[in-house]
Amino acid sequence: MLKHLKVKKVNKTIDFYFDFSSPYGYFSSELIDELAVRCDCRVNWRPYLMGVAMKVTGRQPLVQFPMINNYSARDLARVARFHGIGFSQPSEFPVASVAACRAFYWLNETQGADRAKQLARQILRAYFIEDKNISQAPVIIDIAAQSGIAVTDISDALQDPEVKLKVREVTDRAIERQVFGSPFFIVDDEPFWGHDRLGHLEAWIKAERW
Amino acid sequence: MLKHLKVKKVNKTIDFYFDFSSPYGYFSSELIDELAVRCDCRVNWRPYLMGVAMKVTGRQPLVQFPMINNYSARDLARVARFHGIGFSQPSEFPVASVAACRAFYWLNETQGADRAKQLARQILRAYFIEDKNISQAPVIIDIAAQSGIAVTDISDALQDPEVKLKVREVTDRAIERQVFGSPFFIVDDEPFWGHDRLGHLEAWIKAERW
Repeated sequence: MLKHLKVKKVNKTIDFYFDFSSPYGYFSSELIDELAVRCDCRVNWRPYLMGVAMKVTGRQPLVQFPMINNYSARDLARVARFHGIGFSQPSEFPVASVAACRAFYWLNETQGADRAKQLARQILRAYFIEDKNISQAPVIIDIAAQSGIAVTDISDALQDPEVKLKVREVTDRAIERQVFGSPFFIVDDEPFWGHDRLGHLEAWIKAERW
Repeated sequence: MLKHLKVKKVNKTIDFYFDFSSPYGYFSSELIDELAVRCDCRVNWRPYLMGVAMKVTGRQPLVQFPMINNYSARDLARVARFHGIGFSQPSEFPVASVAACRAFYWLNETQGADRAKQLARQILRAYFIEDKNISQAPVIIDIAAQSGIAVTDISDALQDPEVKLKVREVTDRAIERQVFGSPFFIVDDEPFWGHDRLGHLEAWIKAERW
């Protein structure tokens, strides 16, 4: 092979797992695009049903524990202010995210990743800024409709057995890959758990490990 | 009051809570002094018995959960490498930290905070670098002896009812203050949980909140 030939570097891809009802997942969703630009990476958005993973690990949401619940509310507001991200603690929390996941993967399959990502952002902001209960199918349908998707299309999609199967498959695959939290990132088969690991994720990619 | 008179700024104090058997507490112990210099702060080292707090909150160590255990081992090694801190996963983990706490507070009361901090570092490094089981009183006595403390003094101290009471009091006070993890920092009555909140702690002090 001729050394003077420049080999185009293959950009890395970050698999970005999150649950639509996870506030730290939401924070990361607001920051991951800029990180990707800085790292010259692509991001593969992988919403999944973290509740299924939590059943496997036997872990319970931290909000169920006394003291931690108080701290958590404080930390969430503080992290949001730190990054300048809009945030208001939803009235219903956590909520089922299966409808949001179905909408995402249906759009992902039919109109591509960019369009699905755009809808994901709208759903996350509806929940974490506007306090809309995204566990309800009509709320998801309304959000989709606002971004120009026909109500009949999205309504059908939420009931589509293939879409339902896709969400189960993504979640099963996540658990197979030992994904158990939100956000959860994988790059180079290296796992990073938590919004507070974004810095390490970035350093890892830039340093080519360490 | 005359405006041209310079009022000496009172340096803030960070209360630094940790458990001697907590690896992230150990990492923070290796970094907190430099942070304090950057922030012009003092640090009040407050080892305590996190196990008591975990009983109150009902929380269990993450290492007990499948998948998370694997991730945790990887993350610990990675964080240590990131900061250039020596680390080797102890064979026995977690262990009771009551003997280490007693040694700390006895020295703190009799020879002052700096000397106690020095011993704390030696104990943490013995556990997390040299794999010595610091739950055992003879191990603590040996570490103390190596730093010039008479064996009879430290042996007596570990059995001293007043020292035992002090450790219970510090732990009770920590729980009263809603401390439940390790490391756990409080400054300006603002709580920061976790090694990964050191950056926010520093920003908070430098920015005078945000």
